Amino acid sequence: MQKVDWILRNGIVLTMDDERTVIQDGAVAVRGSDIVAVGAANEVTADYQAAEVLDCSGCVIMPGLINAHTHVPMSLLRGLADDLRLDVWLHGYMLPVEKEFVNEEFCRLGTLLSCAEMIRSGVTCFADMYYFENEVARAAAEVGMRAICGETIMKVPTPDAASYDESLAYCQDFLAHWQGHELIIAAPAPHSTYMCTPEILHEATHLAQAYGVPLLIHLSETADEVENSLQGHKRTPVEYAADEGVFAAQTVAAHCVHIDESEMALLARHGVGVAHNPTSNLKLGSGVANVAGMMAAGVHVGLGTDGPASNNDQDMFEEMRLAALLPKGVTGDPVVMPAESAVALATIEGARALHIAHLTGSLEVGKRADIAVVDLRELHNAPRFDISARNIYSQLVYAAKSHDVCHVMINGRMVMRDRRLLTVDEQAVMAEAQRIAARVSAFLSAREGNLLDKLVAIGGLEWRETFEVQVKVRVHDLDALEQRLIFLPGVIIQRHTVRDQYDTYFFFADPGMGRIRYREDEVMREGEVPHAIYTLTLTGPTHEREYDDSIVLSRSRFSAIADRSLRFYREYFQPTAVKEVVKHRRRYRILYREVDFAINLDALPESAGGGSFLEIKSRTWSKADAERKAELIGELLSLLQVDRAGVVKQEYVDMA
Amino acid sequence: MQKVDWILRNGIVLTMDDERTVIQDGAVAVRGSDIVAVGAANEVTADYQAAEVLDCSGCVIMPGLINAHTHVPMSLLRGLADDLRLDVWLHGYMLPVEKEFVNEEFCRLGTLLSCAEMIRSGVTCFADMYYFENEVARAAAEVGMRAICGETIMKVPTPDAASYDESLAYCQDFLAHWQGHELIIAAPAPHSTYMCTPEILHEATHLAQAYGVPLLIHLSETADEVENSLQGHKRTPVEYAADEGVFAAQTVAAHCVHIDESEMALLARHGVGVAHNPTSNLKLGSGVANVAGMMAAGVHVGLGTDGPASNNDQDMFEEMRLAALLPKGVTGDPVVMPAESAVALATIEGARALHIAHLTGSLEVGKRADIAVVDLRELHNAPRFDISARNIYSQLVYAAKSHDVCHVMINGRMVMRDRRLLTVDEQAVMAEAQRIAARVSAFLSAREGNLLDKLVAIGGLEWRETFEVQVKVRVHDLDALEQRLIFLPGVIIQRHTVRDQYDTYFFFADPGMGRIRYREDEVMREGEVPHAIYTLTLTGPTHEREYDDSIVLSRSRFSAIADRSLRFYREYFQPTAVKEVVKHRRRYRILYREVDFAINLDALPESAGGGSFLEIKSRTWSKADAERKAELIGELLSLLQVDRAGVVKQEYVDMA
Repeated sequence: MQKVDWILRNGIVLTMDDERTVIQDGAVAVRGSDIVAVGAANEVTADYQAAEVLDCSGCVIMPGLINAHTHVPMSLLRGLADDLRLDVWLHGYMLPVEKEFVNEEFCRLGTLLSCAEMIRSGVTCFADMYYFENEVARAAAEVGMRAICGETIMKVPTPDAASYDESLAYCQDFLAHWQGHELIIAAPAPHSTYMCTPEILHEATHLAQAYGVPLLIHLSETADEVENSLQGHKRTPVEYAADEGVFAAQTVAAHCVHIDESEMALLARHGVGVAHNPTSNLKLGSGVANVAGMMAAGVHVGLGTDGPASNNDQDMFEEMRLAALLPKGVTGDPVVMPAESAVALATIEGARALHIAHLTGSLEVGKRADIAVVDLRELHNAPRFDISARNIYSQLVYAAKSHDVCHVMINGRMVMRDRRLLTVDEQAVMAEAQRIAARVSAFLSAREGNLLDKLVAIGGLEWRETFEVQVKVRVHDLDALEQRLIFLPGVIIQRHTVRDQYDTYFFFADPGMGRIRYREDEVMREGEVPHAIYTLTLTGPTHEREYDDSIVLSRSRFSAIADRSLRFYREYFQPTAVKEVVKHRRRYRILYREVDFAINLDALPESAGGGSFLEIKSRTWSKADAERKAELIGELLSLLQVDRAGVVKQEYVDMA
Repeated sequence: MQKVDWILRNGIVLTMDDERTVIQDGAVAVRGSDIVAVGAANEVTADYQAAEVLDCSGCVIMPGLINAHTHVPMSLLRGLADDLRLDVWLHGYMLPVEKEFVNEEFCRLGTLLSCAEMIRSGVTCFADMYYFENEVARAAAEVGMRAICGETIMKVPTPDAASYDESLAYCQDFLAHWQGHELIIAAPAPHSTYMCTPEILHEATHLAQAYGVPLLIHLSETADEVENSLQGHKRTPVEYAADEGVFAAQTVAAHCVHIDESEMALLARHGVGVAHNPTSNLKLGSGVANVAGMMAAGVHVGLGTDGPASNNDQDMFEEMRLAALLPKGVTGDPVVMPAESAVALATIEGARALHIAHLTGSLEVGKRADIAVVDLRELHNAPRFDISARNIYSQLVYAAKSHDVCHVMINGRMVMRDRRLLTVDEQAVMAEAQRIAARVSAFLSAREGNLLDKLVAIGGLEWRETFEVQVKVRVHDLDALEQRLIFLPGVIIQRHTVRDQYDTYFFFADPGMGRIRYREDEVMREGEVPHAIYTLTLTGPTHEREYDDSIVLSRSRFSAIADRSLRFYREYFQPTAVKEVVKHRRRYRILYREVDFAINLDALPESAGGGSFLEIKSRTWSKADAERKAELIGELLSLLQVDRAGVVKQEYVDMA
């Protein structure tokens, strides 16, 4: 009689092995971190003597669920803002809040909250993509969860890195630190093809290969992403990632909502795993991934919740259910995705998609003991049929709920018993989470709450711009300046328009709320009636940064086509003050040293303080890029022989 | 200070009134069955003195959820058979099991189980369609749930009626019995346009109007239903129902998955409510209803689970979530169905769809006290934001779960407190349900389990026939008989084919399992190579009924196109005996007295016992129809001068 640490017995053992063995009165024996026996309860108990025995009568003993894609710290932002267009959600809420709040403590706490939630719903392993991923890994290891922790790398500044070089450096240290850990696999996570440069993709791939770890990336989540990739790269995100060599790593691609059969074949050929996120893909309006097609093509597909800010929970039972239901409704074929396949997505196929099927995903001797015990004795599970093996999968997918999970073991360690979490102080974590939520609420209410909400409410809002490097200089002779510009060597003029701009600014009692600009832009073309464009823009109160020559990095916010009258907006927003600025603008779009600049030659009437001004602006993405562009603007000022004494830091509306 | 029975206080009161009032620290006062006050907690407690006070801190106090479409007794068949094509699911499992098991006790028990499940998830009112609806009503009233109980009427025999006249008579008594009940509204429920004759639709409408109650019907659930209606009636089911006058009643149409804008306008114009069943529509592969379109057209849409055999639970939180998620994913528009709208579907709009908004659906003074209290202090609900009123709806729809419901009051009576059911003995009901499930399992396993499972497993299975009235007679001179047939007055020959049929029967040790027939049908047309049709049919062992002249009512079962070899099937089914029958068949499809008959003139070779036979067959739907057709077959036998002494009761394969 061999000694073991645990025997879980007298439950229905769902092995999820290759034969999909189901043992009606089964048992699992565990020694240390490993499964040492799976079989009939009477045989296992005859062969092994256990330090602790867990009776699982009336329960299913199954592999712990694998959440193949999430952003765990975002549980702290659960329910912050929903039912918004992706850009408004992301740029209006998530990014500003992340910029303000995401730090090491935030990531640690959010991970603890998510781990507690996931364990409660039977999840034993997750693949994460976020910032300060070292904190995510530390918190997960402390709670005792298995995790692939993907440090996010983007071409723009992130909460944990001012540039991608910093991200890559962080990532390398992070990978080195966690090598060989029994629970944690540290991994690079280049965000996506659209948020990464080729260099990021190459470096991340090399890191993943060097450390023999998976590489996590988002691919083809939305139709827009694919469209933009086709325009920019003449290839889809999947094709582009393949061509850039990303698939040389053990890649896990999240989403793949918009891919065709040839891309599925490409993923299968390279052994790329896919993380399917049905709830998130619906909630953000991304669409429904063709999971049956991917499976038929030989792609290993796992199931994920995506971040809890776009779900809004991390309930893998809901994902299993949706993964089984959606393909039926979309194709009209009720046999396209049986319950058994949905359970497989959440267990063994998830493990394969994450390249860790040698460790977890099924109850088989030699694998780690990652086990969920699901109690089927609750009312909503009654009655129980066992006409065929299919019944048990049906019950788990279509009737059982995450709350039915009663015990969870990870790597041989019991982390929940009788629905009591053993490794997290649930109440403390929840209290701390609520404290952060209160701060986030206050921040959003104060900084942009009302105006933004009101803008959102009237619809049509779009995120138009991000950051701009710009300078404004008072000049004397606009015509002479224009001549210099036109004939300046090295400057290529791409577009030229002339317009009268009538701007109306709404100011509010609390300057922290920002201001709203209603602009009527009368574009004049020779021999034509002027063409008018009306826009509404919400801008913040401050500049972000300042460079030499008073060149500033400014942030514009939301703009929308204004399809109602100025009167309407005045009444709607009820500003405490209104100011108008009229100007005649000659607008040039130029290329200088291959960089795109907008040059405005503005004449303001006497009534508005009067004067002539030169503005030079360029959009930017990263710190290094902004510095480079600020330098180029300095060069242009010199070439245009502009007297820097005339530099004006205010906006026109603030000058009078 | 006025006296009341209950005050529920200190929760967030979600009124769902027209202004969507949300009271952060609110209270509801209840006297008898009615809500007498809704307001700020301090005001309500200052104005009213309550016999009992329920502290709802950390909870939402909201209108009880309304399940606008279900078949409650079917909870007893939950998880019996899933992931099958609709016809296989319905005809292979549901109908045979219902025929065998559905009686008064089944309906009573299933209702108790469903009521317990629904109360646990915050449901206070449901609209049902099933058989023995008087038992459903009795059980619901006993538990204390509000219900519209729809007695199902169909043109075919049902578990509670051998014909539709019986159903209508039952229905009239049922409506009369429950008039004026405080919880139960008894209603007629003609199943659908395809399962009802015009007479049924008219009678049901008159009943509903006479008693001033709603009429429940399924409309346009599947694309096939619409297609068949267009072919048969030149109108869609909605148009047909309208033309037959059904919408003169307070109609509630379940599903409406496949309707266009003109039909939405038609529903709105007639005040027809729609019950949307997102899970069931996905699970059965029916599609996704355009709820946003219906709402825009002014149709009141409620939310339902459909029967628990096609869901497989009655969890309105899951339906709310899906109702909010699906339209986003399908249209690509994440703002098309905000969480607030999903909550409305499950409450006030559901009440409007069911024509009972004067009673329930919102927390307003004067309405019945139908209230669910939802505890938001569980981990998966943390943290909580209240930047805008939207947050609370988001939390309920995207994060909260049915298990979070802690108290439920219906009609002023507390039916669940602190998650303990007060009006049902949950354990007893579950035990009884399991006992019935065991009997159903045994029945299915014994009677058709193996063969049917195996047929299903190889795919392509279709329900081809239902019941046939038929007779077989040994005759002497087929040619003479054929001449008489061709020139028989009153007989119109519609089609004539000649074929050699090679049938191979598989027999099994247990005759109760039925038998499988593999048929090679060589259809001969002059001057052409014979055209072969291969089919596989599972038939039961017995005749259903016998009329005069040994005319029998037989039941054929499943048939499938046989796309594999006879060898494959022999190995696959492993019959204990195999028998072949070869015959030459002259096949006529005729009309006699406007009824369709198949007439076979069969010649069997000597090797197979030999002989010549006449078969007359006709498909049938109801008892009365079968009797009429049996009579006509008798007339045809006389007209054809067939000697009734030659009547053979066996099938060919059983003769030799």
